[in-house]
Amino acid sequence: MKKMEEMILKEGKVLPGGVLKVGSFLNQQVDTKFMKEIGDEIARLYDGEGVTKILTIESSGIPIAISAGFAMKVKVVYAKKNKSSNVSGDVYSTPVKSFTHGVTNNVVVTKEYLTPDDRVLVVDDFLAHGSALTGLIDIVNQSGAYLVGCAAAIEKGFQMGGDRLRAEGYRIESLAIIDEMTDDGITFREQK
Amino acid sequence: MKKMEEMILKEGKVLPGGVLKVGSFLNQQVDTKFMKEIGDEIARLYDGEGVTKILTIESSGIPIAISAGFAMKVKVVYAKKNKSSNVSGDVYSTPVKSFTHGVTNNVVVTKEYLTPDDRVLVVDDFLAHGSALTGLIDIVNQSGAYLVGCAAAIEKGFQMGGDRLRAEGYRIESLAIIDEMTDDGITFREQK
Repeated sequence: MKKMEEMILKEGKVLPGGVLKVGSFLNQQVDTKFMKEIGDEIARLYDGEGVTKILTIESSGIPIAISAGFAMKVKVVYAKKNKSSNVSGDVYSTPVKSFTHGVTNNVVVTKEYLTPDDRVLVVDDFLAHGSALTGLIDIVNQSGAYLVGCAAAIEKGFQMGGDRLRAEGYRIESLAIIDEMTDDGITFREQK
Repeated sequence: MKKMEEMILKEGKVLPGGVLKVGSFLNQQVDTKFMKEIGDEIARLYDGEGVTKILTIESSGIPIAISAGFAMKVKVVYAKKNKSSNVSGDVYSTPVKSFTHGVTNNVVVTKEYLTPDDRVLVVDDFLAHGSALTGLIDIVNQSGAYLVGCAAAIEKGFQMGGDRLRAEGYRIESLAIIDEMTDDGITFREQK
């Protein structure tokens, strides 16, 4: 998605430690006009795949999941990072390591919201080491639902999570893939 | 909003301790068709008020804020519960107590995303004791922006946060207000 690359170049800030800050449009402040285009693009990529549900993880995956859910007219489920008093009953649970925050959270999804009849699209804002997507895929597998594929707004190709998941046979679509990121500039991977 | 009351009666589950579980459509699984109606209704309520930005708090406020942001064609900012490595620079900060989780979090918003030129609508999924809205109002005041008002999907009227804020002079719109909630049933407040 050309516009994602343009937005990263225009608005993104490269911070030490391989952190790309895109808070001005993606994950602190949300540019809703662009977010609608993101949802429409994900819907276009997975058109005809019979997706019945979108699964993401709180918090920064939620805007993308909601936008894609609007475009695809399907329900959205988001995994929570802690089982709290308003998550009752049986849950699917899986550990997800956050490299940004340096912690591992047990993320949960209430069982009744994913069933073997579902065809699930997993979405998130960033795909880096692939820990979040791997956890969400594990939850889909626990539920017996069919995993159609995954979509990320921005993939950090140099952190290899996306290519590892592709090698495992999953369909992974990223709207922009960054292969190199330094103070001097950002190099995107060519995509069809 | 009649449909919010109907959804609460149809899908909601009353749990001990004054907890209303609406995870099947509002805050774990999101019914995107209904969520679009929620955003449209908030846009209708605040039509003509010149809102330039919507402010909410992660995570369960985000779907409502995004839907309202789509309808009102304004950007959305969400306060984060912890300052993390992808929140850099100066932030507005305020303590917010979560009665659900029994903790107080210092929530933050990067300063550049709220300015004195903004006319801000604060939204959240639940309004109970009013701690989250009070914190978000404090952040709006710190920024010098103008607070247009607040909108909540569901207000627990019996926990008094909404009426306290109204008495302080704020415009508070809730799509459904629950005045009483027991195992036997839910009583909604009449609204114009």
